[in-house]
Amino acid sequence: MEKVNWRLVAAAFAGVALALEALPSLVRWLRAGRQPRHEVLFFPSQVTCTEALLQAPGAAPARSPADCPCSLPHSESSLSRLLRALLSARSSLELCLFAFSSPQLGRAVQLLHQRGVRVRVITDCDYMALNGSQIGLLRKAGIQVRHDQDLGYMHHKFAIVDKKVLITGSLNWTTQAIQNNRENVLIMEDAEYVRLFLEEFERIWEEFDPTKYSFFPQKKRSC
Amino acid sequence: MEKVNWRLVAAAFAGVALALEALPSLVRWLRAGRQPRHEVLFFPSQVTCTEALLQAPGAAPARSPADCPCSLPHSESSLSRLLRALLSARSSLELCLFAFSSPQLGRAVQLLHQRGVRVRVITDCDYMALNGSQIGLLRKAGIQVRHDQDLGYMHHKFAIVDKKVLITGSLNWTTQAIQNNRENVLIMEDAEYVRLFLEEFERIWEEFDPTKYSFFPQKKRSC
Repeated sequence: MEKVNWRLVAAAFAGVALALEALPSLVRWLRAGRQPRHEVLFFPSQVTCTEALLQAPGAAPARSPADCPCSLPHSESSLSRLLRALLSARSSLELCLFAFSSPQLGRAVQLLHQRGVRVRVITDCDYMALNGSQIGLLRKAGIQVRHDQDLGYMHHKFAIVDKKVLITGSLNWTTQAIQNNRENVLIMEDAEYVRLFLEEFERIWEEFDPTKYSFFPQKKRSC
Repeated sequence: MEKVNWRLVAAAFAGVALALEALPSLVRWLRAGRQPRHEVLFFPSQVTCTEALLQAPGAAPARSPADCPCSLPHSESSLSRLLRALLSARSSLELCLFAFSSPQLGRAVQLLHQRGVRVRVITDCDYMALNGSQIGLLRKAGIQVRHDQDLGYMHHKFAIVDKKVLITGSLNWTTQAIQNNRENVLIMEDAEYVRLFLEEFERIWEEFDPTKYSFFPQKKRSC
């Protein structure tokens, strides 16, 4: 029987033990550049200039905030952070919003559509036709919108960016809410939450398919 | 020089390597009974009987759902899960709610107060005096309530249980919302989110201190 080289075996075990210890740190180090996003925004938001964020592609050359002549502050705000999170979309954006009248958020969504991001919007029937709603403008721009036809409100206020980041909270996308209300928005890069909210989005998207609308509803609605 | 017993060294390294490998599993196994809570509730909720959850301490002996004579289903629902999350409170409950009129959720909060849980409520001035609001009942029961006195809405809808679990989402605590609306509620046992929302609660709690109310406000309000 060959003699076991115990020195070698000990060295091998030591190597394995060290590697096992070091592995999680190594993985963390490699991933350090792109930590999953977890952010909470509280509102009311300071009113700041968001022009630098919202410039159309191919328009005037990108202006830095320092070049902007307007008198608003050019610092970060809860609204600018929300815009940044949305404008990071590269492939898809699902929006499920009770009320949508903020011009800045409307421009961000139209920009994404122009950049080729697939945008789908679900909204509430009672609020989409109000003065100042962005829904008509989004439809004119060619963005798909579906809405409810029942008595309850479609009261969600969430967005899913690139099927990776969930944005959800109490905030309706209106200037009133952004500038005056106490509100919260969570921005979460979390696969499990994204999966659950995406399933909810797809369920509602199918249910609100216009081919399923009833034109003689049993309960009266304003639209 | 004493001869190294390499066999012993190898065995020791093997033992350490195995222990390092097994440790995370062991910790997971030990913690299995109390995994951090991460749950998403979607509404509308099925209408179910919640009587078994809401029995007052010292009242009739605890009834199991099977004994209840009512005709409602006795299964789990989004509302019953929300009630369970709240009723797990043992020391404190912070509520920051735009609208609060659900009788079941009102009973749950009163039960916690009776059990000695420290309950604090922040709400919106415009909705607290409406018919069916629970706010008056909570105040009568001796629960501390503070509200805004400004033009913007206090539009948050969150709760913090025992300074450990955050409950937040789109849901106003009304029967209309629970039974008819599309809504979401996240239940998150997450130290960082709890810290941020608790800071927001304390900020608002201080700001809405009644000693700071102005009785001759510049802008007219209904209360």
